[in-house]
Amino acid sequence: MSPDAKKGLSSVNVVHTNIARADRAAVERLAASGVATVHEAQGRTGLLAPHMRPVFPGARIAGTAVTVSLPPCDNWMIHVAVEQCREGDVLVVAPTSYSEAGYFGELLACSLHAHGVRALVIDAGVRDVRDLKEMGFPVWSKVISAQGTVKETLGSVNVTVVCAGALVNPGDVVVADDDGVCIVPRLKATEVADASAAREAKEAKARTRLKAGELGLDIYQMREKLARLGLIYRDRPPEE
Amino acid sequence: MSPDAKKGLSSVNVVHTNIARADRAAVERLAASGVATVHEAQGRTGLLAPHMRPVFPGARIAGTAVTVSLPPCDNWMIHVAVEQCREGDVLVVAPTSYSEAGYFGELLACSLHAHGVRALVIDAGVRDVRDLKEMGFPVWSKVISAQGTVKETLGSVNVTVVCAGALVNPGDVVVADDDGVCIVPRLKATEVADASAAREAKEAKARTRLKAGELGLDIYQMREKLARLGLIYRDRPPEE
Amino acid sequence: MSPDAKKGLSSVNVVHTNIARADRAAVERLAASGVATVHEAQGRTGLLAPHMRPVFPGARIAGTAVTVSLPPCDNWMIHVAVEQCREGDVLVVAPTSYSEAGYFGELLACSLHAHGVRALVIDAGVRDVRDLKEMGFPVWSKVISAQGTVKETLGSVNVTVVCAGALVNPGDVVVADDDGVCIVPRLKATEVADASAAREAKEAKARTRLKAGELGLDIYQMREKLARLGLIYRDRPPEE
Amino acid sequence: MSPDAKKGLSSVNVVHTNIARADRAAVERLAASGVATVHEAQGRTGLLAPHMRPVFPGARIAGTAVTVSLPPCDNWMIHVAVEQCREGDVLVVAPTSYSEAGYFGELLACSLHAHGVRALVIDAGVRDVRDLKEMGFPVWSKVISAQGTVKETLGSVNVTVVCAGALVNPGDVVVADDDGVCIVPRLKATEVADASAAREAKEAKARTRLKAGELGLDIYQMREKLARLGLIYRDRPPEE
Amino acid sequence: MSPDAKKGLSSVNVVHTNIARADRAAVERLAASGVATVHEAQGRTGLLAPHMRPVFPGARIAGTAVTVSLPPCDNWMIHVAVEQCREGDVLVVAPTSYSEAGYFGELLACSLHAHGVRALVIDAGVRDVRDLKEMGFPVWSKVISAQGTVKETLGSVNVTVVCAGALVNPGDVVVADDDGVCIVPRLKATEVADASAAREAKEAKARTRLKAGELGLDIYQMREKLARLGLIYRDRPPEE
Amino acid sequence: MSPDAKKGLSSVNVVHTNIARADRAAVERLAASGVATVHEAQGRTGLLAPHMRPVFPGARIAGTAVTVSLPPCDNWMIHVAVEQCREGDVLVVAPTSYSEAGYFGELLACSLHAHGVRALVIDAGVRDVRDLKEMGFPVWSKVISAQGTVKETLGSVNVTVVCAGALVNPGDVVVADDDGVCIVPRLKATEVADASAAREAKEAKARTRLKAGELGLDIYQMREKLARLGLIYRDRPPEE
Repeated sequence: MSPDAKKGLSSVNVVHTNIARADRAAVERLAASGVATVHEAQGRTGLLAPHMRPVFPGARIAGTAVTVSLPPCDNWMIHVAVEQCREGDVLVVAPTSYSEAGYFGELLACSLHAHGVRALVIDAGVRDVRDLKEMGFPVWSKVISAQGTVKETLGSVNVTVVCAGALVNPGDVVVADDDGVCIVPRLKATEVADASAAREAKEAKARTRLKAGELGLDIYQMREKLARLGLIYRDRPPEE
Repeated sequence: MSPDAKKGLSSVNVVHTNIARADRAAVERLAASGVATVHEAQGRTGLLAPHMRPVFPGARIAGTAVTVSLPPCDNWMIHVAVEQCREGDVLVVAPTSYSEAGYFGELLACSLHAHGVRALVIDAGVRDVRDLKEMGFPVWSKVISAQGTVKETLGSVNVTVVCAGALVNPGDVVVADDDGVCIVPRLKATEVADASAAREAKEAKARTRLKAGELGLDIYQMREKLARLGLIYRDRPPEE
Repeated sequence: MSPDAKKGLSSVNVVHTNIARADRAAVERLAASGVATVHEAQGRTGLLAPHMRPVFPGARIAGTAVTVSLPPCDNWMIHVAVEQCREGDVLVVAPTSYSEAGYFGELLACSLHAHGVRALVIDAGVRDVRDLKEMGFPVWSKVISAQGTVKETLGSVNVTVVCAGALVNPGDVVVADDDGVCIVPRLKATEVADASAAREAKEAKARTRLKAGELGLDIYQMREKLARLGLIYRDRPPEE
Repeated sequence: MSPDAKKGLSSVNVVHTNIARADRAAVERLAASGVATVHEAQGRTGLLAPHMRPVFPGARIAGTAVTVSLPPCDNWMIHVAVEQCREGDVLVVAPTSYSEAGYFGELLACSLHAHGVRALVIDAGVRDVRDLKEMGFPVWSKVISAQGTVKETLGSVNVTVVCAGALVNPGDVVVADDDGVCIVPRLKATEVADASAAREAKEAKARTRLKAGELGLDIYQMREKLARLGLIYRDRPPEE
Repeated sequence: MSPDAKKGLSSVNVVHTNIARADRAAVERLAASGVATVHEAQGRTGLLAPHMRPVFPGARIAGTAVTVSLPPCDNWMIHVAVEQCREGDVLVVAPTSYSEAGYFGELLACSLHAHGVRALVIDAGVRDVRDLKEMGFPVWSKVISAQGTVKETLGSVNVTVVCAGALVNPGDVVVADDDGVCIVPRLKATEVADASAAREAKEAKARTRLKAGELGLDIYQMREKLARLGLIYRDRPPEE
Repeated sequence: MSPDAKKGLSSVNVVHTNIARADRAAVERLAASGVATVHEAQGRTGLLAPHMRPVFPGARIAGTAVTVSLPPCDNWMIHVAVEQCREGDVLVVAPTSYSEAGYFGELLACSLHAHGVRALVIDAGVRDVRDLKEMGFPVWSKVISAQGTVKETLGSVNVTVVCAGALVNPGDVVVADDDGVCIVPRLKATEVADASAAREAKEAKARTRLKAGELGLDIYQMREKLARLGLIYRDRPPEE
């Protein structure tokens, strides 16, 4: 490979400013519903891969995405992105190549926190996790690693990114809790929040009956279909 | 592959009812001993693969297995299995193909809990883990994933399954804690509980001496064998 | 989770017909350049994750994408997609959830081959790989698995998909060889083919000099920068 | 852990002699059908995990299982097992704990080959793979590793084992090719061979039609069900 | 492979006694700085692979290494190593081959604790993790597994080992916390402790400014270089 | 993390020139013996992790190590290292942090080949693998990836490195074939070559007897020890 390998087609590095963001009230309602419900309510789309785990348990948040596309092992663009963040945002960071370095630590968390950012979602590594827990700044990441990064090469902010297998546009809603991370498209936030609430109402009724010992087989009227498909009930033979 | 690929040999889908279960008193004693001790006491057999981890730390349980064999990404048979469960059971779920979907969440946990089930062991994914922790319903799984499943295809309940590399028969004892999951065959429960207790008594004596600073080298009389095999003691050379 | 978990927001299942396709001549030129060159020439974008491997070595192809989004462990939509394929296409299949089942085998390859499809790219498993090799039908997949799938649930054809971490639109160019798989956006095909050719011309000159024993240090004039950054040359001390 | 940790319940180490073996003619027919077909024909059961890969491509074999359960990093029992092998057997080796050492190499292959053994299936590592390829002795393993093992601790031969997630009894049929490894229970060999042949006959008809360009949609009459489930066909909008 | 495979070159098994240890005061200062800071302060060297995780969160320790090289699935040398430990040491255990067995549990922890050892770092598995947490004896390991080991084969104590990809000499400083594990060479302990303190002082100033909402772009004067490299700021187009 | 994170302790970047190399005749003899034999003959030390695989099968080489330590996703130091290579060397490349980028391709292979280098061993990714195979330039790597790297940051050449878990000093012998990669210390090359030849002579005798059908049980006189340890032979019960 020649040393100008990075050249070729001009791939412009850009920071998009003044992005549109999802409706704030819908964002708060989505946070209350949580990842599993929201994911179902929008037709099982938008889920990040299950390797994205919280660095400490218990947080449940939603916010509007500020996206960062950056080269592997280089966290410079995160500093650039802070300036584009507002109260209620979530930073979504996607390296352009697989790497397990630690792109993010407590100092950057202080900076994001000062600008009202609620969480970080990064398909790579982070460090200072004890400090992050003490600060209460939640992070969902692929790995924990003390291995630092450099600040040499440009990337982009607020462009469309693929993060842990999911498409994220700036301004989309990021919902995250102990079950993982789910993206709701910006313009569907209210619709999905409504559908999530409807699911919860329906589940509340089922929950009451299930806690009372009723069977899902009866509540959901499954017995006929099971029989039609040929399910057989019989005593377990003693020799088995 | 033709669309009737699923046919071929008739592989009957069956729910075995009225299974025999391991002795209840032995189950309680095995819970108290924990996985590491029980696994040793029964000759180092029955351990599930170490990818089976608790979704929250600290639980230590034992119960009698109700087994579920189900197709990948389909959790219908879990609903069917609830009806076969009794106080003191543990549900053991083994998909017939690798998948990382989330087969199980809080509503099913409510249902199992209402029927006295103590825990779930599943070689796949689960969700609603914050709710599971709040309910105190312990789960050992391969992954955490909000990705749901369908209810389309039959499987079987209370047949012999291979779960995370271990053979499980219905009625066997499932022991699980922060170290993992171990299966004790139904008819060996009392024998293994006795052997576990014997191990603990012996270890208690060793523990007292080790805490007092005695060396295992002396307690277990290892020095002679080490010397015979040729172990050399010498000062570390300064140049190294 | 309730049994109507799959409902919620209406997520329409659609087959897009009459898609626009990238310029045919550009596609052929991109095939000749290969993945590593094309990826560099378009600014290091569009590469699928390195777990995507050819099921047999030696193929180098390019074609226009027909995309398939399908539920995990269900290959029905591949049958639907065949009808949308033309001479010169490559089928790109992305399950909506991680699974290692074998979605594709020799019969489907016969069908695709009869419609002029050049290859399959699938972020999941395939089978009948000995037959695929004998037929000369190349496949890039995540895994090889004989585990079959069902035909129960709808998906979509020719929608935007994320496959192994990369965004693919129908009609985009898929370039694939032993180095992996790279996507070139439909409207950039000619531009990237030109840039690839330019890279190859430049590399040809460097190759001649390197084969003659000249050093990259000299050809690319790296020595000054190395010295400025502080690189030290010295004999290796004997004691090390 | 005390030094007698390996004791506890007497877990007898045993070599079972004179095992019953599956019908020889059925074994040969199953070899001809291959793993994908056999697995379907017996109702999608018996498949080993997809991490089991051939150390060289192209072999397709079937044979009767001689099983070996052995401690991790100890290959002594393989030597013991050779004596129990006959013409037409396949050795199936399952360590009791995960390890990636190389338990098997060219000398043991010479010994097995001299006794008519057709292949090795081992859920661990092997070495001398260039020699194995030259000899034409096929092996399916989890890993290739030059790291040797010891000969210190007993295991058992011809007991029931779990190998790569599948249950194997001595005398069962082992079918293996580039798609992986599948186990057919001893007493079902003829039945599954018949079902495999029936599948092949049906697939042959479909193959002829598919090669002629007919669509699976028509051959398998899928269009009505697709429409009923709501699949929509429409031109891809230009703006997308 | 012949049964005397373990012979060959005489590889002496040795226990080095009376090792030199890093300066105690420097060790305590390094513990206070933590892994991420220490790793940066010594020029980004000495970090173990990120698969090394604490078995319970929250511990932050440093100590002097007593190293153990042992055969896979054999923990005998840990008993031998206890005798070489002193107040303030950390045991570093590196099997010579990959394995996921559980080499270490609560009894050995009692013994190490009685001799003043602060922690265990092991590139393999451990068990009894609930007990370890209750005792407050921290462990960093690759896996948690109840699968025990044997006591059959010699290894060495206080020789140079490679543990999780890092070089460790006896007497080196081991620093470990929730971010992972880092090794500081014995003779550099004071120098690295000084450099760590200098980093912390500098970071304290940056932290104050970042918490006040100043941007890293301004604090670190990044704007000019970003512009020179061609970073573009513009409003996000509405159609995107 | 502050932008001067890379500073701290001066970690000098150095190129060691005029390294001592292992005896050439011994190197050739080690190549002929191969990895599995050499690894045994030197007491089971020096093996790289089994994730190091050849990018094409069939090569068996040995050479003297020129080592490269470089930052993740930066291949600049490989260009620097070429100048230090001589006929008969093998380049050993170890990034200081885990990454799966492709650091090496056909142009660098041309350059190394022109300077007499026999192979590359790299604990990271490479590309242009079809070209490498056509050139006959063997490479052992962790992954194949078309993702390129940059040329921004210094590393070192001919320093001690840890590559895939093994310690490599410049001038050591690198032996590599389809079984993996093994390092022989420079000053032990002749001794290990002798021990390897002795092993091969002994194995040749065993091979002749094994091919004739003699059992290892008899050749290695294992029967008495097996009986003493309690191995039981009995017919397999019919009910099992």
